[in-house]
Amino acid sequence: MSFRATVLTLYPDMFPGPLGTSLAGRGLAEGVWSLEARNIRDHAADKHRTVDDTPAGGGAGMVLRCDVLAAAIDAVADGRPMLAMSPRGAPLTQARVRELAAGDGAIILCGRFEGFDERIFEGRDVEPLSIGDYILSGGEVGAMALLDACVRLLPGIMGAASSGEEESFEEGLLEYPHYTRPVEWEGRMIPEVLRSGDHARIAAWRKQRAIEDTRLRRPDLIERHGGVREASPSGAQRED
Amino acid sequence: MSFRATVLTLYPDMFPGPLGTSLAGRGLAEGVWSLEARNIRDHAADKHRTVDDTPAGGGAGMVLRCDVLAAAIDAVADGRPMLAMSPRGAPLTQARVRELAAGDGAIILCGRFEGFDERIFEGRDVEPLSIGDYILSGGEVGAMALLDACVRLLPGIMGAASSGEEESFEEGLLEYPHYTRPVEWEGRMIPEVLRSGDHARIAAWRKQRAIEDTRLRRPDLIERHGGVREASPSGAQRED
Repeated sequence: MSFRATVLTLYPDMFPGPLGTSLAGRGLAEGVWSLEARNIRDHAADKHRTVDDTPAGGGAGMVLRCDVLAAAIDAVADGRPMLAMSPRGAPLTQARVRELAAGDGAIILCGRFEGFDERIFEGRDVEPLSIGDYILSGGEVGAMALLDACVRLLPGIMGAASSGEEESFEEGLLEYPHYTRPVEWEGRMIPEVLRSGDHARIAAWRKQRAIEDTRLRRPDLIERHGGVREASPSGAQRED
Repeated sequence: MSFRATVLTLYPDMFPGPLGTSLAGRGLAEGVWSLEARNIRDHAADKHRTVDDTPAGGGAGMVLRCDVLAAAIDAVADGRPMLAMSPRGAPLTQARVRELAAGDGAIILCGRFEGFDERIFEGRDVEPLSIGDYILSGGEVGAMALLDACVRLLPGIMGAASSGEEESFEEGLLEYPHYTRPVEWEGRMIPEVLRSGDHARIAAWRKQRAIEDTRLRRPDLIERHGGVREASPSGAQRED
């Protein structure tokens, strides 16, 4: 079964957008995955096609009505995970991306304005998910990030030559730094070890750089992952 | 001076994409901000317009050449912050978004393949920035998220009725949950306090829910922020 994405949004015309190009776009064209963007507004119950109302208790902005959201969800629900892009959600991780990419797709709810009526999360078993600790004007770009991350992992999307295993976040580490020709650029050289042809030394150097850079830039990743496997001087791996 | 965004990418046609619609799109049309997407490939030096090469030291994928990236940067550099979307970068935060939105724009480098030759970061004072702990097929969707987050904060983008102050991450807290009509939906009620009309009680409840939800879902935010200001029973604020 291929990966099927259904996006519920007030701006269906935003899709596929960037997902129609490059890797994800080729996958769409080849049927490796499918994408349907549906307008939440089609499920409004009144003649004005109202989808939102003022916040209970007062305050700025508008809140998406749970009855309208539920009707939009009920029209497509079929057992796929139901996600809502929200800054109140759990932060998206590469592990969650792998999990979703291994499934049969997702139904993704995109908010606008102040967000969703909170009752939708329990009322329809919707999981709030956040792409990061910042606020977007709506969930659509977040849904694109989520889908792009999932789709590149689908079988047949990345060529055999491409990686997907040895990259940032896969072992609680940032990826090691990359270099390519020219060997010297404005007085800056590619590190000697990478030009040595000694594969064990190169592997050990890369592992060590991944660990060092993560310790320096993202100690939180190491903490969350419960430590790192150090590269020993011989290039072999040992448990820390 | 308005906010000017320049995106350096191998897929300039992806832009404005979702940024051409809704809030950001209206701001573009009204000249509140500007967006230019330039093709990195136009700065390749050979007749094949080569932008990448194999990783020094071996491995899968291709790496963007620093000399080509530098030429693309040098053609547009004018003192605006230079950012590169990269999973090795610092995580984007709402504080960084506010900082960028208060400036005169940004030059944003989007990678593909295995990423950038590491020398570009020091060689051109480029800051690597990550939108989250997952891997995208390229930097373009990340650049869209970054720009969407910045643009909605620009003067004239959100109406006076909209918020922007009282939302997730502004005090190291998630935002409180929202509710709107109908009062009862499938047996689920809007919390009584929000229907009480008692503004002090509502404010205290919202603050308490923001704190509770953050403690439950994102204790890391509170830790990073160095504690929270508790809502006292009277609804007044005190230092924790």
